[in-house]
Amino acid sequence: MKHFRKELWFHTSQRRDYLNITAEVQAAISESGIMEGLCLVNAMHITASVFINDDEHGLHEDFERWLEKLAPEKPHDQYRHNGYEDNADAHLKRQIMGREVVVAITGGALDLGPWEQIFYGEFDGMRRKRVLIKIIGT
Amino acid sequence: MKHFRKELWFHTSQRRDYLNITAEVQAAISESGIMEGLCLVNAMHITASVFINDDEHGLHEDFERWLEKLAPEKPHDQYRHNGYEDNADAHLKRQIMGREVVVAITGGALDLGPWEQIFYGEFDGMRRKRVLIKIIGT
Amino acid sequence: MKHFRKELWFHTSQRRDYLNITAEVQAAISESGIMEGLCLVNAMHITASVFINDDEHGLHEDFERWLEKLAPEKPHDQYRHNGYEDNADAHLKRQIMGREVVVAITGGALDLGPWEQIFYGEFDGMRRKRVLIKIIGT
Repeated sequence: MKHFRKELWFHTSQRRDYLNITAEVQAAISESGIMEGLCLVNAMHITASVFINDDEHGLHEDFERWLEKLAPEKPHDQYRHNGYEDNADAHLKRQIMGREVVVAITGGALDLGPWEQIFYGEFDGMRRKRVLIKIIGT
Repeated sequence: MKHFRKELWFHTSQRRDYLNITAEVQAAISESGIMEGLCLVNAMHITASVFINDDEHGLHEDFERWLEKLAPEKPHDQYRHNGYEDNADAHLKRQIMGREVVVAITGGALDLGPWEQIFYGEFDGMRRKRVLIKIIGT
Repeated sequence: MKHFRKELWFHTSQRRDYLNITAEVQAAISESGIMEGLCLVNAMHITASVFINDDEHGLHEDFERWLEKLAPEKPHDQYRHNGYEDNADAHLKRQIMGREVVVAITGGALDLGPWEQIFYGEFDGMRRKRVLIKIIGT
């Protein structure tokens, strides 16, 4: 069994953003030399997400409005976590969007459906944060 | 390390539906000959879900009403993703229900709790869609 | 490829609770002797969750209020699942919080970000329930 580990680093210019990281994940798989296996991709921060959905700008605007409806950022004092921090909403939003994806590797490539794209979802950005890629296989 | 890949295809007669696929996943594990390992089961479409919950009809009606409350289908024009498409709500519902499950394989069988059942959750059906099963182990 | 399996049992004194199980998961990894691989940690019950977030008491109070807003326990008769049972809300809450986490193992340790902690989320407690740890690797 082979294994491979890589970190991806991000620094968004906005508090909330969605970055397509599919090509970086495929590059890590190619670098690993693993042909058949499983690839874990997870946010290493608890106010961010890795998820799979459509690379469509209108949908990302829908995510923003929908997550703000389900777990609004403001007023900050509605959350007991806030005070020294102001990011309780980001901890909640990430529960809906998910921490991680596990993706199949087949023939050395991401085994995704036709519209599946891997995203880093940032909910408390404007600072350096990272994603872990861990691959095991043969 | 052994590996195994299989697709399951579905075509629901309704826009939204829940199909118990536990037996199909177990059949794939048996076909693989893998006794100990991990089994990834994921929707290959971004408007569908694979999740684990109870096989109880009342609960599935509760899912329908609850998901319609959190991410209503209509009016279609409330979502920027819609226009050519009408399925933005399905992209949101699938984030709550999740894309995938990873299940342990022990002694050649799904290692599930007493009430755990694996479901394909369809949120934009009435066409052919598929699920990927990828198994690695020994 | 090595593999390892362990169950953790819990019995909370309240209906809903959050237990930090990070040390127990690390202990299982150490017991397994696996240095590089993937660790699946999943609730074996469909009214409970395993998730990763912050070990901060205020945030856990926010989870309680937020989940009660999105999927209120009462009135029990608002759910078709209820009648003989009263835990439909727990089935819904667990969909938001998630069934499982998959965590990387690197150098024999949990490969977590600085604030990532693994929790057992109980939504229908006051009875014995369990979590499965399954580890594969080398």
